[in-house]
Amino acid sequence: MTTPTPHPFYLDCDTGIDDALALAYLLAAPTARVVGIGTVSGNVSAAVGARNTLDLLQLAGHAHIPVALGAHHPQAGSFGGGAPWVHGDNGIGGVSLPPSPVGLVPETAAQMLVRLAHEHPGTLRVLAIGPLTNIAEALRLEPALPTLVESITVMGGAALAPGNITPVAEANIHNDPEAAALVLAADWDVTLVPLDVTMESVLEEHHRQELLASPGPVPRALGEMLGYYFRFYEDIFGRPCSAMHDPLAAALAVGGIKASLAPVVRAAVDTSSGPGRGQTVCDMRGAYAGYPAQPGARCRVVLEVEGDFAPHLVETLLSFSKSTTAALASAGSVA
Amino acid sequence: MTTPTPHPFYLDCDTGIDDALALAYLLAAPTARVVGIGTVSGNVSAAVGARNTLDLLQLAGHAHIPVALGAHHPQAGSFGGGAPWVHGDNGIGGVSLPPSPVGLVPETAAQMLVRLAHEHPGTLRVLAIGPLTNIAEALRLEPALPTLVESITVMGGAALAPGNITPVAEANIHNDPEAAALVLAADWDVTLVPLDVTMESVLEEHHRQELLASPGPVPRALGEMLGYYFRFYEDIFGRPCSAMHDPLAAALAVGGIKASLAPVVRAAVDTSSGPGRGQTVCDMRGAYAGYPAQPGARCRVVLEVEGDFAPHLVETLLSFSKSTTAALASAGSVA
Repeated sequence: MTTPTPHPFYLDCDTGIDDALALAYLLAAPTARVVGIGTVSGNVSAAVGARNTLDLLQLAGHAHIPVALGAHHPQAGSFGGGAPWVHGDNGIGGVSLPPSPVGLVPETAAQMLVRLAHEHPGTLRVLAIGPLTNIAEALRLEPALPTLVESITVMGGAALAPGNITPVAEANIHNDPEAAALVLAADWDVTLVPLDVTMESVLEEHHRQELLASPGPVPRALGEMLGYYFRFYEDIFGRPCSAMHDPLAAALAVGGIKASLAPVVRAAVDTSSGPGRGQTVCDMRGAYAGYPAQPGARCRVVLEVEGDFAPHLVETLLSFSKSTTAALASAGSVA
Repeated sequence: MTTPTPHPFYLDCDTGIDDALALAYLLAAPTARVVGIGTVSGNVSAAVGARNTLDLLQLAGHAHIPVALGAHHPQAGSFGGGAPWVHGDNGIGGVSLPPSPVGLVPETAAQMLVRLAHEHPGTLRVLAIGPLTNIAEALRLEPALPTLVESITVMGGAALAPGNITPVAEANIHNDPEAAALVLAADWDVTLVPLDVTMESVLEEHHRQELLASPGPVPRALGEMLGYYFRFYEDIFGRPCSAMHDPLAAALAVGGIKASLAPVVRAAVDTSSGPGRGQTVCDMRGAYAGYPAQPGARCRVVLEVEGDFAPHLVETLLSFSKSTTAALASAGSVA
């Protein structure tokens, strides 16, 4: 059996509990090789997200992956303080990870993305699971970015599903609508992984118990974080469980799971100050006739995926655990 | 068998092919008594809508029902010319009706609504199937209107479904967002019948053929109009058929069909100049837990109805035909 050459990935994140799961998934996925990570303010500040990212990489035996600090403030206004009621004060549900001795690299997240796009021309996959501030900044630094990267996958938005931060807006997009508008208007095909599909990809308590029962510290830490996340989602779903926003976007970008319904539609972002601010205005009017082609459309909106995501996610996270147990022996235990 | 006392109805419309069906349905429904009709610019101008309404009433043997001309222009901007590609140049798919000799009453639609609300205190049902300009004007003329009427049912908006005039806005609301915002913010419970449910209530070609085969001129005229309407909807559904927006709202207001899912949610109308202008921003975030109660919510959003609407609609329209055949004998035939 031959392993295919893994795809180089740039991950842009605001780590965050589901970001932590997405990162672990990417590290465990045999077809992905994370070559750089940038952080952005969203679930937590860019700085706290960077701290969590560094600590998770260290825990997972991947401390060599460079992490760059990205934008603290969105393009308009200023960072609002994150979502501690969802992700906890430290962004990872109050779980204490052994602090990594590794520091940040001396470049911004946007600079890192541009550098990596040039170093991996035509092959770099961009996965953005936080607000799109850094990606917009990279487009400004390097207008040719769309021709340099292989693909961009964004967790964000809501096409026909309700929003999660306003009735119509999803948090990643709402946190920086101006950046999102710029990213969706750029000369590339964007795969959008919106709440329509992520809210249907739910991790249940028995999945969390599987992670907690693992001998590996990474699955165990993720299982502990999910305890906090589940409590937030209990109000939404009526039971302890959680949507898997960022891991699903990661799995789609990697190819670990396939989209079964993903029309390519015209999409814009509402940057007004009205009640629609931050909404991804996707033109889904073709829904009644199987989404006929739309001239000029560049946004692939994932609405459904094949199969059940949760078992695939858990299996991937657990297999990662096995392969890195040796590396983790010296990393200390999760507090 | 006793017939219940019919409810007095004020109908506000922009007639319009599906308005014509809604009007005929109301006239045929044994539990409704139309006591006045106001017109508003929307599908056609308020004046053309009034002409169509008068002619339909005459054809149906109900020329005694008073018709008042309502607003030509929306609250902001001016009337855009209607939707001849949907409803035909004359608003009723090019069908020629025998011209009614009856004229308009000397009051505005808003004045008529206020008068009728005082004449039928606590019992008047308001059914608005066009832009909400007249209703907003009536609220200004009589701030106590919400306490005077029994109920208000509005065909309009899109909660989770795509829009039909923009990706997120439905035409009635988009044609006068400022008026709709005022109506939804007033001190009454509004039943909203949005595209979410009207696009699922489809009349097929065999239903149209049933109307065309009727001995009554009203069902025949409606069947002819639907030929035009079906051609517009062929692009949307991929087959000749049509959504039954206004008749479904009429049937819900009358009680001829019941809502099976209709959460009461907070709702606002986007009056910004952004891409969300005219959207009904309904807070559907409770969808994942069966729509728990929302403090302060006043908008009942109909998402699903019991049973199949099309046969009920056709049956009602055909029964109306039988009961008025005598009255129609002298009304002349449809051209």
